[in-house]
Amino acid sequence: MNLYKGIHIIVIQLGNMKKMRIKNLGFSSGQYLVVIDDSVAVELGVRPHERVKVSYNGREVVAIVNVARNIPSNMILANEDILEELNVKEGDYVNIEPAPIPLSIKYIKDRLRGVRLSYDEVKAIVEDIVSGRLSEIELTALVTATHYLGMSIEEMYYFSKAMIETGERLELNKKPILDKHSIGGVPGDKTTMIVVPIIASLGYVIPKTSSRAITSPAGTADRVEVLAPVELNIDEVREVVLKTNGCMVWGGALQLAPADDKIIQVEYPLAIDPFFVPSIMAKKGSVGATHVVIDIPVGRGAKVKTIGDGHYIARYFIEVGRRLGMQVVCALTYGEEPIGYA
Amino acid sequence: MNLYKGIHIIVIQLGNMKKMRIKNLGFSSGQYLVVIDDSVAVELGVRPHERVKVSYNGREVVAIVNVARNIPSNMILANEDILEELNVKEGDYVNIEPAPIPLSIKYIKDRLRGVRLSYDEVKAIVEDIVSGRLSEIELTALVTATHYLGMSIEEMYYFSKAMIETGERLELNKKPILDKHSIGGVPGDKTTMIVVPIIASLGYVIPKTSSRAITSPAGTADRVEVLAPVELNIDEVREVVLKTNGCMVWGGALQLAPADDKIIQVEYPLAIDPFFVPSIMAKKGSVGATHVVIDIPVGRGAKVKTIGDGHYIARYFIEVGRRLGMQVVCALTYGEEPIGYA
Repeated sequence: MNLYKGIHIIVIQLGNMKKMRIKNLGFSSGQYLVVIDDSVAVELGVRPHERVKVSYNGREVVAIVNVARNIPSNMILANEDILEELNVKEGDYVNIEPAPIPLSIKYIKDRLRGVRLSYDEVKAIVEDIVSGRLSEIELTALVTATHYLGMSIEEMYYFSKAMIETGERLELNKKPILDKHSIGGVPGDKTTMIVVPIIASLGYVIPKTSSRAITSPAGTADRVEVLAPVELNIDEVREVVLKTNGCMVWGGALQLAPADDKIIQVEYPLAIDPFFVPSIMAKKGSVGATHVVIDIPVGRGAKVKTIGDGHYIARYFIEVGRRLGMQVVCALTYGEEPIGYA
Repeated sequence: MNLYKGIHIIVIQLGNMKKMRIKNLGFSSGQYLVVIDDSVAVELGVRPHERVKVSYNGREVVAIVNVARNIPSNMILANEDILEELNVKEGDYVNIEPAPIPLSIKYIKDRLRGVRLSYDEVKAIVEDIVSGRLSEIELTALVTATHYLGMSIEEMYYFSKAMIETGERLELNKKPILDKHSIGGVPGDKTTMIVVPIIASLGYVIPKTSSRAITSPAGTADRVEVLAPVELNIDEVREVVLKTNGCMVWGGALQLAPADDKIIQVEYPLAIDPFFVPSIMAKKGSVGATHVVIDIPVGRGAKVKTIGDGHYIARYFIEVGRRLGMQVVCALTYGEEPIGYA
């Protein structure tokens, strides 16, 4: 009986496996992407945005499926990330078969129904975000659902921790490590450029990463770049900090909490940011911060409108920080007008 | 003063316009897609999933931007839909510039904040869905937000009406036109194959469209296909119905309420269907139905668990139908076991 079952499964798998010629899409995107003809998708039994396993010579990747028309039925278009990972050349034959659905998608569907997530479930989701196994639809659903459902303080901690664990970490083997962050929303903020040198000059370690602006004229990283290079890699950051006590660099060049960077790509076009506490705390945790000041500008034009809301949000940062082993202090600041000569 | 303003605007636009060589991605997807290098995206000031205008020789399209790496900075990868629409050949130079953000995205952001939409706003959203101007992130946010916020009966009517108006319509110039639909969820349903011939034999017109199954073994369209071709175009449907009073065809081969088909592509992987009332009513409206029976299977394993919920849902169908000029009757049926020899 077991033997028959085994044979049955093998037959099904062979039936859904196809040998196809690989063609290079000619770009690299940090996620494994393939495009196949719609008739091939039906034949394989995969729908758009589901996943296929592409294998060649003992190597394999799981890729998100895009379905299109007018593609020869024995051809699979793949981005360079796939050709590199499989070490395969355009024109070679690779094996394609439907890939099992990642467990994290079940957890996202649970989340959509309002279920709170355990640490293992959050970790599975974050790992799949980082490795590009989630489609944009699934990631957007997670972000939008969280916008409506909110996050428990446990989930904020779980996401922060999982984001830290799935990224690079700055190891300085020093204590204390100081850091600061503003949740933003007020133009003209140049605090970092003043605070970091002061802290460093007093003998404290402060490895500060900042973001660039894309649509606004300048983010802190852009401002710093007028004076010094900001695109350092993690080894260069370590070198600079060990020498000078501080740094001001662009976070995007590092791989600190990369899940956060992918979540932001979805939040930005929708103008919502339900992950802002884990986002910030994960970046602080990734540089090993032990003492952190969070600036919460409050005012009608800022992200946080009232002092009451500011206190509420401050408690999240302090408690998530405590669980991550950081001492967090929040400063509610005046956010009703631009800071300095904006 | 006005003149200076005009010059200023021209200068900004020229600064953000780029001549680039177009390269064919080699597939067609029903949506305009381009891929550019991340450095080019920064130069143009567009972020991933935003839109660019691609123009050539007096023709232009608005395409969704995908950002990747390792693409020559003077090259834009475009799918075949774009090359066809612009009548341009691989290697030719096209103009690229950032496209304005569609108004519908503002309305989707309003919807995310809980705002109810007017008909004009719904129409703008549906038009942009059909023409592929919305990114998957924006469409998914609309679907997920609607899952949480629900839809007012006005919005159900607006979406139904807008979906009908943005698609093909079956014009039979006859009355009455009968139709039936089951909201599904119970295996083994073969009602259509029995009901349609009976209705047609009694002299009533019933142009029935059905869906295929992809992951389950068979949808109604698949079942009918055992006996007759189901991939008819709209002219063939008209011919068949005028001759025999009825038809049983695959809805996916027609262009009835195409916005619905795109919404379903997002709903399916998330296993949610907040648009089911407009989805169904739009398809009925597109074939000109005047009298419709909606089957609502009720039971613990079905989509609708209780008789109370069934009554609730029935009211939506009846009222939306009334506003669309259809007489709708709902049948709450026993949905606790498969129908017939499943």
